Amino acid sequence: MKVEELLARQGAWLSPKKFDGTIISSRLRLARNIRGVAFPGWAGARESASLCEEIRNTISSVQALRDAEFLHTGDLDGLDKLVLHERQLLSPELMERDNGSGVFITPDQRIVLMINEEDHIRLQVISPGMDLMKGWEMISSIDDELEEVLEYAFSPELGYLTACPTNVGTGLRASVMMHLPGMHLMKEIDPMIRGLNKMGYAVRGISGEGSEAFGNMFQISNQMTLGYSEESIIQSLTIIVDEVKNHENNARDQLMDDKQEYIRDYVGRSMGVLLHAHLLSSKEALDLLSAFRLGLEIGMLSGIQIPQIDELMLLTQAGHLQKIEGKVLSPDHRDRARARVIRERLKDALMY
Amino acid sequence: MKVEELLARQGAWLSPKKFDGTIISSRLRLARNIRGVAFPGWAGARESASLCEEIRNTISSVQALRDAEFLHTGDLDGLDKLVLHERQLLSPELMERDNGSGVFITPDQRIVLMINEEDHIRLQVISPGMDLMKGWEMISSIDDELEEVLEYAFSPELGYLTACPTNVGTGLRASVMMHLPGMHLMKEIDPMIRGLNKMGYAVRGISGEGSEAFGNMFQISNQMTLGYSEESIIQSLTIIVDEVKNHENNARDQLMDDKQEYIRDYVGRSMGVLLHAHLLSSKEALDLLSAFRLGLEIGMLSGIQIPQIDELMLLTQAGHLQKIEGKVLSPDHRDRARARVIRERLKDALMY
Repeated sequence: MKVEELLARQGAWLSPKKFDGTIISSRLRLARNIRGVAFPGWAGARESASLCEEIRNTISSVQALRDAEFLHTGDLDGLDKLVLHERQLLSPELMERDNGSGVFITPDQRIVLMINEEDHIRLQVISPGMDLMKGWEMISSIDDELEEVLEYAFSPELGYLTACPTNVGTGLRASVMMHLPGMHLMKEIDPMIRGLNKMGYAVRGISGEGSEAFGNMFQISNQMTLGYSEESIIQSLTIIVDEVKNHENNARDQLMDDKQEYIRDYVGRSMGVLLHAHLLSSKEALDLLSAFRLGLEIGMLSGIQIPQIDELMLLTQAGHLQKIEGKVLSPDHRDRARARVIRERLKDALMY
Repeated sequence: MKVEELLARQGAWLSPKKFDGTIISSRLRLARNIRGVAFPGWAGARESASLCEEIRNTISSVQALRDAEFLHTGDLDGLDKLVLHERQLLSPELMERDNGSGVFITPDQRIVLMINEEDHIRLQVISPGMDLMKGWEMISSIDDELEEVLEYAFSPELGYLTACPTNVGTGLRASVMMHLPGMHLMKEIDPMIRGLNKMGYAVRGISGEGSEAFGNMFQISNQMTLGYSEESIIQSLTIIVDEVKNHENNARDQLMDDKQEYIRDYVGRSMGVLLHAHLLSSKEALDLLSAFRLGLEIGMLSGIQIPQIDELMLLTQAGHLQKIEGKVLSPDHRDRARARVIRERLKDALMY
């Protein structure tokens, strides 16, 4: 099964080669639509199905997608969809759809092209660490290739036309996933979110739109695309991310200076629970793994590599867990399996 | 210093020879007063001081107290008093007093005689495990010896006269300290306390009168002494304790049958926090040690003996902790020292 093959490979954005303590991954997404065809939300089932096939056939020759796997949404069961969603390879919108939509995924899982999501085309590039500029070069050149074979809906005044007005213009959303346990412990998260919202940035949890922040992971992204150039969107977000990163580092310094024993306790008891609990909810696991990751970053813990923690954060999600176990599990059984997987993977952890 | 010598010895009621999973210790206490002398609460300072000396000199020849150490309350600093209180060798009432009162303590710490507490004499015998009948024989024979040299305030109608009406009659309070984590987990503690209160029994926490229940430790004792013989007080309490013990065992059986993973999780994460926390409050430490003790009792944990846990429950109390560290510590520093002592002592713990 194709999804199993994907699962067996680690996404490039979890690659240990590029690693930053605070910045997990950078993501760029373009929304595009085909001229003269109704947006997916308005199109009938038959119209959507034929457009999906047409786009699929047209772009399968595009250089960047040559080795990509295409998955029909209608061929995926709920668990497949959940797993892909947990890897950021399938949006919540596309999880709800079945026939007439689908997704291209490259073997390294960095490039994703969804057909008939909210827009006809959603193109996404994810990179490990802070890499918006290179990501932008990559997504932009794929977009150019696509534009050679597809006729985009484009207005000289407005730019690219999209189903939702917030995407009109560049159709670009740039986002960066950050790990901010220091700011969490210093109670600086809420003020940070309020401040960024006022400046036109969205801050979301690990699972995308509207999701609660689990594991101190936050996605910061631009809200508006109309009236800004792609480069200015990326430059502004880069500055914002840099600022948040400084805040996080300051918070950690302050904690290490004034509350070292408190941090040691926070890291230690999180490790203790991870190593010895037999029931762990998804939220608790992510929160504890976040503390564990902080422990590794500041050198209080060893024996485990940070990418192993990032992988565990993914593997202990409901979908991945059930894929690993090879069966559908009730929430209770998931909590048990999650605790077991974590105990096994962290058993070599050491604390100073 | 005498208190240090006491600390160096383990009290007999922590002796590993006698051990019951549920019943920690049995305690008997007699309240007695000297005929024709004002109760301590009414007596002046000089009167109290001279009575204290008189009683002390008179009874130091009594066989059972021959090797006992006598400590003047006025010679004890706050920390000494706290340590003695944590060992159940000094009552809260006597902690408040200074001159004109004191306490005899035998080397094995089983027999305690307090002078000028609420009553002129408070005699106490503690035994490890369930041992009320033998304890009664012991305290009764000491009481007989005392009665040969002291003239007790006694009324043929009422029995022994005491400062507080609840002690008039036999002057006997019998109490049993029980460890009830199963009933706690099954939420059966509050109904049990309400039921026992209605039947005339008091249920208190680990540190005596009015104290909150820490570490799932509960002292069950008779409330009334007037109108009952000593033997019937002890027999009734024995029946009650037996019933509570059955309840606790049933609760554990039910948990092991229906919620084994939940217990495993409760025991496991408690062990995890004990082994890795760096800040532990007194209440949290006792609650976690209670879970750890349950783990040992039901065979989920090994590598540590139950008496070691009971000892830790004592050693991590504020007074003992400061004695071990050799200095007065702020609450923050106590939390740190407590976590360190526990980490060191439990490091060989194993979970299946």
